[in-house]
Amino acid sequence: MMASDILVSEVGPRDGLQSIKTVMPTEAKKAWIAAEAAAGVREIEVGSFVPAKLLPQLADTAEIVAFARGIAGLTVAVLVPNLRGAQAAISAKAHKLTLPLSVSESHSMANLRRTHAQVIEEARGIAAAIAELPEEDRPHFEGSLSTVFGCTIEGAIPQGQILRLAEQLMEAGCDEVGLSDTTGYADPASVKAMIRAVRGAVGDDAVTGIHLHNTRGLGLANVLAALDAGLETVDSSLGGIGGCPFAPGASGNIVTEDLVFMLQAMGLKTGIDLPRLLEVRGIVADALPGEPLYGFTPDAGLPLGFIPEKTNARLEAAE
Amino acid sequence: MMASDILVSEVGPRDGLQSIKTVMPTEAKKAWIAAEAAAGVREIEVGSFVPAKLLPQLADTAEIVAFARGIAGLTVAVLVPNLRGAQAAISAKAHKLTLPLSVSESHSMANLRRTHAQVIEEARGIAAAIAELPEEDRPHFEGSLSTVFGCTIEGAIPQGQILRLAEQLMEAGCDEVGLSDTTGYADPASVKAMIRAVRGAVGDDAVTGIHLHNTRGLGLANVLAALDAGLETVDSSLGGIGGCPFAPGASGNIVTEDLVFMLQAMGLKTGIDLPRLLEVRGIVADALPGEPLYGFTPDAGLPLGFIPEKTNARLEAAE
Repeated sequence: MMASDILVSEVGPRDGLQSIKTVMPTEAKKAWIAAEAAAGVREIEVGSFVPAKLLPQLADTAEIVAFARGIAGLTVAVLVPNLRGAQAAISAKAHKLTLPLSVSESHSMANLRRTHAQVIEEARGIAAAIAELPEEDRPHFEGSLSTVFGCTIEGAIPQGQILRLAEQLMEAGCDEVGLSDTTGYADPASVKAMIRAVRGAVGDDAVTGIHLHNTRGLGLANVLAALDAGLETVDSSLGGIGGCPFAPGASGNIVTEDLVFMLQAMGLKTGIDLPRLLEVRGIVADALPGEPLYGFTPDAGLPLGFIPEKTNARLEAAE
Repeated sequence: MMASDILVSEVGPRDGLQSIKTVMPTEAKKAWIAAEAAAGVREIEVGSFVPAKLLPQLADTAEIVAFARGIAGLTVAVLVPNLRGAQAAISAKAHKLTLPLSVSESHSMANLRRTHAQVIEEARGIAAAIAELPEEDRPHFEGSLSTVFGCTIEGAIPQGQILRLAEQLMEAGCDEVGLSDTTGYADPASVKAMIRAVRGAVGDDAVTGIHLHNTRGLGLANVLAALDAGLETVDSSLGGIGGCPFAPGASGNIVTEDLVFMLQAMGLKTGIDLPRLLEVRGIVADALPGEPLYGFTPDAGLPLGFIPEKTNARLEAAE
């Protein structure tokens, strides 16, 4: 296990909020993002540049990006479904753009009504638009391979197809490709195998992050496998909100609080103040009345004598 | 990761039932144990030989052991708090006896009103009682180190103290020592370090199993670390019942269904028929009205095209 920094990338304000019906007020989103950044979270996906009629929950994304850009040290990430969304993200000066590409073409057609070739074409257009900017203004551009561990329509996707799409995204001009377990089908062995295969195709530097779900309870075990395989960026959602939960009580996204507890207990550095992070739940809970928040660590509390970010610190201190 | 068999040791009928107030009828326990054995579970901790007034839920342990002994291929395990309980377990012909020893002396005094020296003395007495039996009748005798990753009274326990107790249990005549994360304080790094340290003290063959909790959501990640460190037996509870949950919604024990899903998805052999295992939940739910059952896999279902016990089978099949 590596001892270097792990980047916890909070996706709640985008992935979380788009999956639930309650519309969070803009001011509450700002309070959430500010509080989480103040707790030490260094990257937050704050919204998505999709038509407001499709996702009214995220209609204020431009305003949220402008606000978040004012927070020193925070990487402001957004999701963009196409070139049009990317242009809006560029105008708003987001630091990072993520374009999803479902490796299952059936899933891509069902969700975005686009073939693989069409999504790759959008990627090419976005890369060209970014290339026109002065170098210091260019956002980081990630192509995210979704349903990479299988899809509810097609089941497992042939690895050759996944690797070809990863290569095409990089050739189209992406800075990196992400891996996304949209359906919660991943397990620790397939996580390691997939990271190895995609890195083999496009290079280690082009694969640094992963978006895992907790649909079948394996979220943190899969994170452990991803870290073992060398990744350093992990997506999660405060309170585990969002991420297509299958059933009441079944969280979709990995819970940021539990993830940070695990990393810190293992002695890995996250830069996050865990007690302050736990306090952010109150902001989210107040702004989403009636929505369940997930997570075990918030209920259980920290272990007696817990010393964050120092491996076995408690055990050594007890000698 | 090893490809050999993993033994999933079901502790629900003991650890699960002792933690909840509802008393499960004896016939329901038998139906549960029979159904889980029929699904392929090879070891079940079926009860505890403690005074009935302390744990009325487990007062029928002798009858349950006799019943479970009639199931071919099943290892019938019981918890024994002392020599007196071990004598009852021996009379009932249990295959495996587990004596807990809390490595935190404060915890040991609070829970069992016994010092470490007194528990070691009980271990010695139990080993002597076993040695008097004909060789073919001798049960396997495990000393289980509880609160090994820290205790809610003392916090972290000095490793030297843990290793000394492990050695004393083996010297007293235990066949092996188990590790138990009673408080849910473990993380993947400390799990690996603890296994390495205790194996170093008493030998690899004397440490084969671990009892982990999911108190802070790290249960399956900790299992992964334990398997990586070479263990082959993992305790869990059907529906995650029991195991001192801290709060509503916070499961204590690892959920057998999620554990088996993870192992099989990774290509590890468990001998368990997962769809049949999932059906056992109905028996437990019917017999414990009002008690919550935990687990993600039962709600989410198995992935489309899931092929158990073959690593990346779905991915390869999709080629």
